[in-house]
Amino acid sequence: MDSALVEAQRAAALGEVPVGAVVAIGERIVASRHNEREATDDPTAHAEILALRDAATELGTWRLDEATLFVTLEPCPMCAGAAWASRIGRVVWGAPNPDAGSLGSLYHLGSDPRLNHELNVTHGVREEACGDILRKFFSQRRA
Amino acid sequence: MDSALVEAQRAAALGEVPVGAVVAIGERIVASRHNEREATDDPTAHAEILALRDAATELGTWRLDEATLFVTLEPCPMCAGAAWASRIGRVVWGAPNPDAGSLGSLYHLGSDPRLNHELNVTHGVREEACGDILRKFFSQRRA
Repeated sequence: MDSALVEAQRAAALGEVPVGAVVAIGERIVASRHNEREATDDPTAHAEILALRDAATELGTWRLDEATLFVTLEPCPMCAGAAWASRIGRVVWGAPNPDAGSLGSLYHLGSDPRLNHELNVTHGVREEACGDILRKFFSQRRA
Repeated sequence: MDSALVEAQRAAALGEVPVGAVVAIGERIVASRHNEREATDDPTAHAEILALRDAATELGTWRLDEATLFVTLEPCPMCAGAAWASRIGRVVWGAPNPDAGSLGSLYHLGSDPRLNHELNVTHGVREEACGDILRKFFSQRRA
């Protein structure tokens, strides 16, 4: 999660909503990205989507069942869905997302037996640090 | 939906699960793509994600509120989430997706007042033709 926090800080420095994501297999980081929606004008350029795509390229397969996605904010429906679509083994998220969180808050797309893959989800890791980056970003924007 | 069906046929010819998607503003088609997951080894390369990204590039904004997404199969959680994330005005889908459909079947991510955007959804357009392409593809694969 430390690496995902570094990514989130990079996003903040660029004026992007500060969310960072890392895909790792064991200790090995295979992809590391941050939110780039504003810079790229791409509605899908959330940190998780970019990291999952990079990881698939790096590993040469769209099936990421050996991997773990670490992300500083609880994924939105699109990103929780992308985690499901990539068959990722595990998702670890930091701060809860009460407005759109889809791995525990509004939905739990990771544990729906009707879907063909379930995700092992761990939440609240470095929650304070992950949330502080977002709170600071939005309070500066309002100022 | 005719153009989305043409895209789905293109996917089938390439051995991809045949789903096609088009983004249009009024009569103008701004993006037209098909599923490319196997060719690109990208877990996010569903027709809808690719079409939404192309449309955002074409229009120079991630906000697609003037646009309609036409897709031959009811979107999965990731793609329904991407439609939400792009603030798209409307989604028109063809065949239902009982295994993962998230605009009516398993979930209705388009009409959740807790989310910051709701989608106008029309379903079952050219349902028979949209479903036939998929049924034919899977029956040939099993043969």
